[in-house]
Amino acid sequence: MEGFIDGHYFEKWDGMVIGLQVKEILVEEKETEYQTVSVFESKTFGNVLVIDEVIQCTERDEFPYHEMMAHLPLFSHPNPEKVLIIGGGDGGTIRELAKHSLVKEIHQCELDKFVIQVSKKYLPKLAVGYSSPKLVTHLEDGMTFIDRYVEEFDIIITDCSDYDSETCTKLYEEAYYKKIKKALKPDGVICSLADCMLTDAEFMKRFTQTIRKQFPVVRYAFGVYTPVYIGGQCGFLVASKDKNKVLEDPVRQLTDEDVKDMNLRYYNTATHKACFALPQYAKEALREYYN
Amino acid sequence: MEGFIDGHYFEKWDGMVIGLQVKEILVEEKETEYQTVSVFESKTFGNVLVIDEVIQCTERDEFPYHEMMAHLPLFSHPNPEKVLIIGGGDGGTIRELAKHSLVKEIHQCELDKFVIQVSKKYLPKLAVGYSSPKLVTHLEDGMTFIDRYVEEFDIIITDCSDYDSETCTKLYEEAYYKKIKKALKPDGVICSLADCMLTDAEFMKRFTQTIRKQFPVVRYAFGVYTPVYIGGQCGFLVASKDKNKVLEDPVRQLTDEDVKDMNLRYYNTATHKACFALPQYAKEALREYYN
Repeated sequence: MEGFIDGHYFEKWDGMVIGLQVKEILVEEKETEYQTVSVFESKTFGNVLVIDEVIQCTERDEFPYHEMMAHLPLFSHPNPEKVLIIGGGDGGTIRELAKHSLVKEIHQCELDKFVIQVSKKYLPKLAVGYSSPKLVTHLEDGMTFIDRYVEEFDIIITDCSDYDSETCTKLYEEAYYKKIKKALKPDGVICSLADCMLTDAEFMKRFTQTIRKQFPVVRYAFGVYTPVYIGGQCGFLVASKDKNKVLEDPVRQLTDEDVKDMNLRYYNTATHKACFALPQYAKEALREYYN
Repeated sequence: MEGFIDGHYFEKWDGMVIGLQVKEILVEEKETEYQTVSVFESKTFGNVLVIDEVIQCTERDEFPYHEMMAHLPLFSHPNPEKVLIIGGGDGGTIRELAKHSLVKEIHQCELDKFVIQVSKKYLPKLAVGYSSPKLVTHLEDGMTFIDRYVEEFDIIITDCSDYDSETCTKLYEEAYYKKIKKALKPDGVICSLADCMLTDAEFMKRFTQTIRKQFPVVRYAFGVYTPVYIGGQCGFLVASKDKNKVLEDPVRQLTDEDVKDMNLRYYNTATHKACFALPQYAKEALREYYN
């Protein structure tokens, strides 16, 4: 029960299936140099991007993911001028980063140019990020790109596919986080896609440990609601090179007026603080990696 | 795409489908006097109770729902001695209520005795609640039961099916909340199953307004992660007759030791506070019903 079947697109994970009703297939599964990519128009979630048989985003429910991925690290940093995104081909994270007046340069390192092409065509509300004059896109493997930099970036965001997709596995491993650490300024903050704690606790423990080995402070942002991800929750790991950093306390507070000006639909100051509150099972699972 | 198909149980809602792999059907869909009930053993979520084609709970992911439903109102009340649950046939909410030393009497009003029977047989980890000596079960319609009481209960919990199930529609309407208000003590607190804000905002606004008409304080507890509910999030509306009540601040704080003693896996003091933080779209939708 996977792929386009009986008018739906189905994704499965560990005994659970999620399906979206399909209105029209826009891009039949295409094998690029790196992965498979499809796009379809769903009945109620707008256009949907699928990579390696995993739903990456839908027009309807992408905003919790992209807003939190961008604004959690940015509002944890006093002066985030130079930002790097590894991945993020759909443009949604760039769109959010570009809203910050403090951000001067956004570098994106995306491996697969086909993802950018289809996003520009079929996900214009996300790919609007590509129109930012602050953006430089590098079509390259993140592992080699990042290796060239020493204390260059204030923020590094890893916006990639799941850890079990062939292309992205290495972006969840220690070698990558060593490079990330080297490329980050001393007061820098990182944010990486994590996973659903209830459905994949063992992986979440390993991944938190991997980042904790390189960074003195790591926190799991649990509270990000994304209906189309299996488990209904994805999380992010946010980490800092500054051992005194309190990631739960944003360095800049937003009024409702600010939130409106930035056109934010999910992120606000209360959500920033609250998303780090862990249910007891998550708190116990990650306790040993918290300083 | 609904029901038992091709080795899975499927539920659909507004263009989205959720499915669980089935190991064994334990109770084929049975039409009781009030609704249809099935139970199956899933491959990875344990046993699953289905009422009127909606998954009610699974053994694996029931704890966020039942813990938050019970402990949010109980930890918002200084002395919750006498508690009423309308519905809650699986026993999970009773199990949680029975953990509180302050609670002296738990009254349950469940319409359908078949739900209790199958829960005792197939959901023993939930139905353990029925062994509490504090419990009195009334097999009756909640609407007529509650009508007999005036300022009787400290807490009233409505643990029922969705608003679009025939049996439960009336438990989301104003007439019911008028009765609830009458039956509740002056400093009483209620908690009712609400819905997913992202997939059903219009209903959530109406329902919040319905409760707000009777209660001076109502808050949406947004942060309850339940993978098998479509939308990945369910919420609760918590309300008080005391206009000065701050529901976000629990009146009793729990240490990790307390949490362990109460065998809580989801609820803790941080989760209580955090679950009321609303993402901006929810905050804007409900703003007019907040005092």
